[in-house]
Amino acid sequence: MTGTLYGLGVGPGDPELITVKALRLLRHCPVIAYPAADEGDSLARAIVAPYLVPGTTPPPQEIVLRLPMRTDREAARAGYDRGAADIAAHLDQGRDVAALCEGDPLFFGSFMYLFDRLAGRYRVEIVPGVSSLGAAAASAGLPLVERNQVLSVIPAPLPAPDLEARLRRGDACAIVKLGRHFTKVRAVLGDLGLLDHARYVERATMDRQRVLPVRAVDPGTVPYFSLILVAARGAQALPEVS
Amino acid sequence: MTGTLYGLGVGPGDPELITVKALRLLRHCPVIAYPAADEGDSLARAIVAPYLVPGTTPPPQEIVLRLPMRTDREAARAGYDRGAADIAAHLDQGRDVAALCEGDPLFFGSFMYLFDRLAGRYRVEIVPGVSSLGAAAASAGLPLVERNQVLSVIPAPLPAPDLEARLRRGDACAIVKLGRHFTKVRAVLGDLGLLDHARYVERATMDRQRVLPVRAVDPGTVPYFSLILVAARGAQALPEVS
Repeated sequence: MTGTLYGLGVGPGDPELITVKALRLLRHCPVIAYPAADEGDSLARAIVAPYLVPGTTPPPQEIVLRLPMRTDREAARAGYDRGAADIAAHLDQGRDVAALCEGDPLFFGSFMYLFDRLAGRYRVEIVPGVSSLGAAAASAGLPLVERNQVLSVIPAPLPAPDLEARLRRGDACAIVKLGRHFTKVRAVLGDLGLLDHARYVERATMDRQRVLPVRAVDPGTVPYFSLILVAARGAQALPEVS
Repeated sequence: MTGTLYGLGVGPGDPELITVKALRLLRHCPVIAYPAADEGDSLARAIVAPYLVPGTTPPPQEIVLRLPMRTDREAARAGYDRGAADIAAHLDQGRDVAALCEGDPLFFGSFMYLFDRLAGRYRVEIVPGVSSLGAAAASAGLPLVERNQVLSVIPAPLPAPDLEARLRRGDACAIVKLGRHFTKVRAVLGDLGLLDHARYVERATMDRQRVLPVRAVDPGTVPYFSLILVAARGAQALPEVS
């Protein structure tokens, strides 16, 4: 009997925003796997840390998927290959493995790369999680969409003309993966007269959460885990941030 | 001291997909409020039912927001006005109130109508939840978006030409609120040659969940709580549903 691979969405940052199901499976699995940058900590691991206090539960074996920052495709592929092989070795021994995913596993998540490599050979169950998008809307107190509005989720790394074409449509938008692309995005929003329809949310539900008007953001401090919500037009400009 | 209104996302259907935080607040609040159609049960109430078993926790007072089906705006407005007044009466007495929301409170949720009516006068905290979107992707085993793909969430009640214009762009799409609009949506997908890129998901994570190719769906049986996921083009046609 081989083990089961669980893709566990652990939510956007606040450890309390993990689901009851993901927490049960986290405690059930003798092996956990999670991504981390080449150097530095894993956000997914940090989110579940309060639930893995030594003494309260048997400590799981841990597999760190070391993934390169930025866009080195070959290195990323090798990292996932290695991680998938490590996970497969445990599954072959009949041990269930929980792959921890920030937010939701299938919403810009890294889990799909493990899923691609392992789903054909092993039983895989995906546990959806609270996404950064819902978390940002909650933190900002802004409805994402209502009635028959369209919501577009747009990655900030797209070229400026693509961003502009998509933002011009008047739909509600979330611009994700900001980081070093913030200045470009702000310029596009400015050109379209949308700055008063947009709100910046950084590290939603985490300790250092910030909600700011886009104009008030220092581009030098924008992390990858930030996004901009743009209200649907026809909608009014957003109220002041208190 | 007035009470706090909590907008609690209770997740997409499986009671285990409630967050630890929403569960804590559910048990903390002496009053719960939830929407229900004119006749019939409340899905949000059904999701938390296992956590409100008499004897294990003091039973909360319950406020049912009776909302009309379909699109009678005036009746809906009156229903929310009445519900907001009932909630306000408890908040004025210092009692915290949990407003239960299927999925995520701000993702096509009804909570925003209570938020609009009460946020200026009372402390409101929104607890994000697992959306039907992430749940459907998990149930279907389909990544929603990866890398720099755009995801558009499109309400099925839009007119066919609008649906077509948005689906033509090649982005990953989720078409939500299907119900009686299914036949129209299927025709648009067929015209665009997208049926093999689309997957139908009904009642994701609930007892009677179904995942089907769009061609296999009987239009007479499509509930409101169903959606169609359309893969980004450039992506391959989807694998067979097992």
